Formats: sequence, structure tokens, C-alpha cells
Amino acid sequence: MKNTSVKKVVTIGGGTGSFALLSGLKKYPIELSAIVSMADDGGSTGILRDELGVLPPGDVRQCLVALSDSSLMLRKLMNYRFENGGLAGHSFGNLFLSALEKITGNFTAGVAEAAKILNVKGEVIPVTNADTKLFLQLKNKILLHGESEINHNFEISKHGVAKMYLSPKAKANPRAIEKILAADLIVIGPGSHYCAIVPNLLVEGIPEAIRKSRAKVVYNCNLVNKKGQTEGFTLDDYIDATEKYLGKGRIDFVTHNRGKPSQRLMKKYKQDSELVSFERTDRKKRHYRVLEADLLSTERIHLDKADAISHTRAFIRHDSDQLAKMLMLFLELGEYEGILRDIA
Amino acid sequence: MKNTSVKKVVTIGGGTGSFALLSGLKKYPIELSAIVSMADDGGSTGILRDELGVLPPGDVRQCLVALSDSSLMLRKLMNYRFENGGLAGHSFGNLFLSALEKITGNFTAGVAEAAKILNVKGEVIPVTNADTKLFLQLKNKILLHGESEINHNFEISKHGVAKMYLSPKAKANPRAIEKILAADLIVIGPGSHYCAIVPNLLVEGIPEAIRKSRAKVVYNCNLVNKKGQTEGFTLDDYIDATEKYLGKGRIDFVTHNRGKPSQRLMKKYKQDSELVSFERTDRKKRHYRVLEADLLSTERIHLDKADAISHTRAFIRHDSDQLAKMLMLFLELGEYEGILRDIA
Repeated sequence: MKNTSVKKVVTIGGGTGSFALLSGLKKYPIELSAIVSMADDGGSTGILRDELGVLPPGDVRQCLVALSDSSLMLRKLMNYRFENGGLAGHSFGNLFLSALEKITGNFTAGVAEAAKILNVKGEVIPVTNADTKLFLQLKNKILLHGESEINHNFEISKHGVAKMYLSPKAKANPRAIEKILAADLIVIGPGSHYCAIVPNLLVEGIPEAIRKSRAKVVYNCNLVNKKGQTEGFTLDDYIDATEKYLGKGRIDFVTHNRGKPSQRLMKKYKQDSELVSFERTDRKKRHYRVLEADLLSTERIHLDKADAISHTRAFIRHDSDQLAKMLMLFLELGEYEGILRDIA
Repeated sequence: MKNTSVKKVVTIGGGTGSFALLSGLKKYPIELSAIVSMADDGGSTGILRDELGVLPPGDVRQCLVALSDSSLMLRKLMNYRFENGGLAGHSFGNLFLSALEKITGNFTAGVAEAAKILNVKGEVIPVTNADTKLFLQLKNKILLHGESEINHNFEISKHGVAKMYLSPKAKANPRAIEKILAADLIVIGPGSHYCAIVPNLLVEGIPEAIRKSRAKVVYNCNLVNKKGQTEGFTLDDYIDATEKYLGKGRIDFVTHNRGKPSQRLMKKYKQDSELVSFERTDRKKRHYRVLEADLLSTERIHLDKADAISHTRAFIRHDSDQLAKMLMLFLELGEYEGILRDIA
């Protein structure tokens, strides 16, 4: 069954993972909405939150740049990071969003103005307009305050997570709810589990809307586990940890990479990361179907000290175009069966 | 004699004076080039020069904004000044130009990229690409270092100026020379005499090119004298002080305001400024012709704390449209005689 109307795709994630995903998806004739987590409090973003009292611009900036159709120079500029003096560490794009928030008087209006200036395809939607903070309580009772502290703690997998929450509580941006309810496809991830995926699902109204929506839900599993954080996670563990907040049984499909990085990259990574494993034999226990493909980027990565995105992206990363192609196949093939040969 | 080809107008000045002039001139179908002084070392600009090692962006920014055809929001953004934290005092547009200089590797290329992004009508040309400093030697031997120090010294008129110079010496931007030589009309000022006009004329090659050019030269006399700096200057004193660097006898026309500010404004200004005076009776001694008109802006000025331009502009200011109209009449009427009824 084919449908010729423009399909509505909603992505849910954070900064760098969404950047990869959106860079690929924007090439297709779909209605694209990127819902972005708002719990970042580290680096340039953290300083701007503290000093200017603005909402965190970093993840939104990356999504805007991914969806921008403006000149290469303007996109370069948005990711430019100052290296010296009082500005050191600030990404130009973060200053851009913070100034627009100040001028317009609120973050969502600032993002809309930024989208116009950057000639953005689709819509970038902060998951909430609330100024909120992410907390993670370990099973040993230790409480981690803020995304930055969580992101830099490497004993999470050792002690285990008791619970995560936002404080103060945050209500969803109504625009995010609207887009989720109208979606044909909802794409969660890739992105940091604790710092990009869960913070979206902790916003009041988001999991409820996803459960209510008639969209198919795809979860893009990360390529590697993060040492000390999601260390030892299998693909199924990611789904369990995500559905804990989303609601059990809501994920329809999961993409999983079966490509192998080069020896050189594996060596480089050995101490920090491991590829996410997946056991085909457990099929019967799963309510979701797993599509495997080689999703690794073979692009050689140029590390530019002054580029805020190349800084934070991993060396082992998704091939944006491969990922987008797979998702578009999901979307276009009503029954999905035609492409499910590879599914466990 | 009328000429139907597009007329070439070159303006020479600094930040706020050029802003007013260019805002008016850009409405006419002319080829407009704004040559901008590069000696600023105060405020946000000074910090960026020191910390990032960039060329001074402040004056160029104001000219780019004046000539921009982009959205009101983008122009507002360029003049937005951060108010808190480590960014306090920085104008967003200065950060924009500094980042582009860093990305492209040189200031002139950065300005060209900025002009594209801002959809600028005409061309903004830094008078030099040299990283140079302005010096003013008083007759009492005291040496003032840098534009900022000169700008904040209020004993210049008391002691008198022995000489001004740039160190290290600066060669003109070849593009500035090219535009001056091809110009139909060269417009000097309005702008701070010591900090915007003279710094352009101290650049090697600029006065020579103006003398060589066949363009008519108009000098837009400032409306008020600056206390402690050009205190007591008559219109003729401005011409003398300018031709000291430009070469005697090169100025063809001078615009002079004969409008009177309101009592309220005069009262506000009494202690800081006086209107520039002009004695009609000395006519025979002059090689230039003076056109008098009411050139005062009656626009009510809104002081916006976060707007970098409203900050620095005077309360008594030129009416951009009146000034531009007068200059366009000069340009279009070959012999200029038709509009010279008012000339002393």
C-alpha cells in the first residue's frame, strides 16, 4: 500500500547523533521535525546558561546546522569555536542562538528566527521551554547533578542507575506534541543514552504522545557502548532502558550496524568503547524487529580544532546517507516486509 | 550635462557617521563603496584585537549593517550587545566578523563573506589590512596611544595637536585605491575628526589617490564640536585640519547644517557640544563652496541598552535621507549650479 502524500517524520535526540541523522534525512522530500533535548549544561552551553540565563543552545544549534540550506560558510561559522581570551570555548552558533533568544524574548522564537536566517529545511523544536536540570541517581544513592556531571561520570555502569529525572519538572513544548501525534514515523536516536535520549523521554507529555501516535517507531541503536556508562549493553539492553521511560512495547523497529570498523579504528577505540552486540537467537522474546546493515561511515574524519561539531563526534560514526536510506525504506514500504530479509 | 551611466560614489569615514550617511545613500541606484577606518582599539573591538589578534571589526560592522538588505532581525542581531558575564560589552556583529576573519584567514575575505550573508548593497572596504595603531602627539609633547586613548582625552583642544600618525605605517587596501580612482563623487565624513576622518587619510596611498582622482570631493561637516577635542572649531577649521592630511585645495563642496535643535536637546548638550559655526562673510578666501540646509534628524531616538549603534550615536544627528538627497543632487547636476542658491 503506497501513500503519495508527504510523509511526516519526527526525530528525537540531542546534538551530534541528530546531526548525523538529519544530514541524511534532509535530502528526502518529507516533512521533517527534529525534537531536541534541552538538558545540556556543559561547555559553552553551560557558561551561557549560567551567565546569560538563556536556555541551552548547543543541541539545537547542531540540528539547525544539519538542516540548513545556507552557504557552506554560514554553516562553518555556526560551528566555529573561539580559541582565545574570554571567548575561548564558545561556539559562535551558541552565541547566535543566545543573542536571538535575548532579542526575541524567548528561546523558541529565537530558534524560529535562526531557522529563517539559516534557511532551514524542516523544523527544529526544543522538547521543552522549561529551564530544567537532569539528575541521575545511582543505585549506591549517589546523585549526579546535571547532564555535564552525568556525561563525565564513568562509574554509572558499575553502580547501576536507580532513576533519572528532571528538576524542576518540565512540560513538553506543545509544538513537539503536535508533531508527534501527526507523525508517520518517529525516529529515536542515535545519541547518548543518558544525555540525549532519556532527557527527551523525561519531559511530561512526550512518552504519552508517542504512545498515542499512530506512527511507527524506529530506534536507531548506537554503534558503540560508552565505557563506564552503557558498558556491556546489548541491543536489547538499550531497548529495555529506553522503554523504561517510553512505555514497554512501543518500539517497532531497531536498526543495528553489522559493519566492522578498521583494525586501526578498533585499536584506537579499544579502551573506550565496544561495538554494541546483538544475539540473533533471542528473536522470539522480542516485540521489535531488528534490521541489520553496514551503517558505518567510511568518511575520513578531519579533526578541526575550531569546529565545534567535529570535536564532539565519535570516530566510529553512522553513515548519514545509509541510515536515512534505510529509514526511508521503512517509511515507503507499507508492510516493511520487502526489506526485512536481514531481520533476525 | 547629464550622464546616464551608474555613478560611482565612495564614502570615507568610520562607524557611526558612515552609518547615517550610508543608510541614506543606499536607497539610490548608484555604485556605492564605503571605505572604513581601521584604527579602533576601544570597547568590544579592543578586546577582540587583544585577545584574538583580529583586525578591528566595529566600524566595518556598522557600515555592513547600514548597507544590509537582509531582515530587520539579522540587522538587529548584528548590533546586539551582550550584557552579562564574560561576553558583556561584546557586540554580536563584532564576534561575527572576528569569527569570519579567523575562518577565512584574513579580514578582507571575512568582510566579503559577511557582506554575502548580510546581503549588502555596495561594498565595504577596510582602508588597510595592516594591524596598526593611531598616535596623536600634543603640542605639549604628550603622546596619546591608540584611538581609544585619543577619544577619551579632553585636553586636545587646550594643548593643540602637533601631529598624528599610524604606527606601524599602513599601506592602503588596493581595492580602496581602485575605487577612489574610479569614483565620480568622494564623500568624506561625517565622523569623529581625530578618530574616523584623519585615520583614513594617514594611510599611505589614500590622500594621493584622492588627489589623483577626477571625482568631486564633498566634505560633510559634523553638526557639533566635541568638547575638549574640536572645541571652538568653525567649518573652515575642519577643512584646514582635514586638508592638512588630504592636501590643500582638494575639497570642492562642504555641507553645513543650518537647522537648530530643540531647546530641550540644546540644554542636554550645552555642556558637551556646540553647533559648528560658519561665517558667510569670509567667502572669498574659500576654495570650496558651502551648501547649507537643515540636515538635522527629527527622529526621536530610542536608547536601547543592548543596541551597539544607538549607544554611540549622538542625540543631535544627521537626517540620513536629507544628507543623501543633497549629495545625489550634487552628483546628478553636472555644474552643481542649480542647487547652489543657498551657498555662501
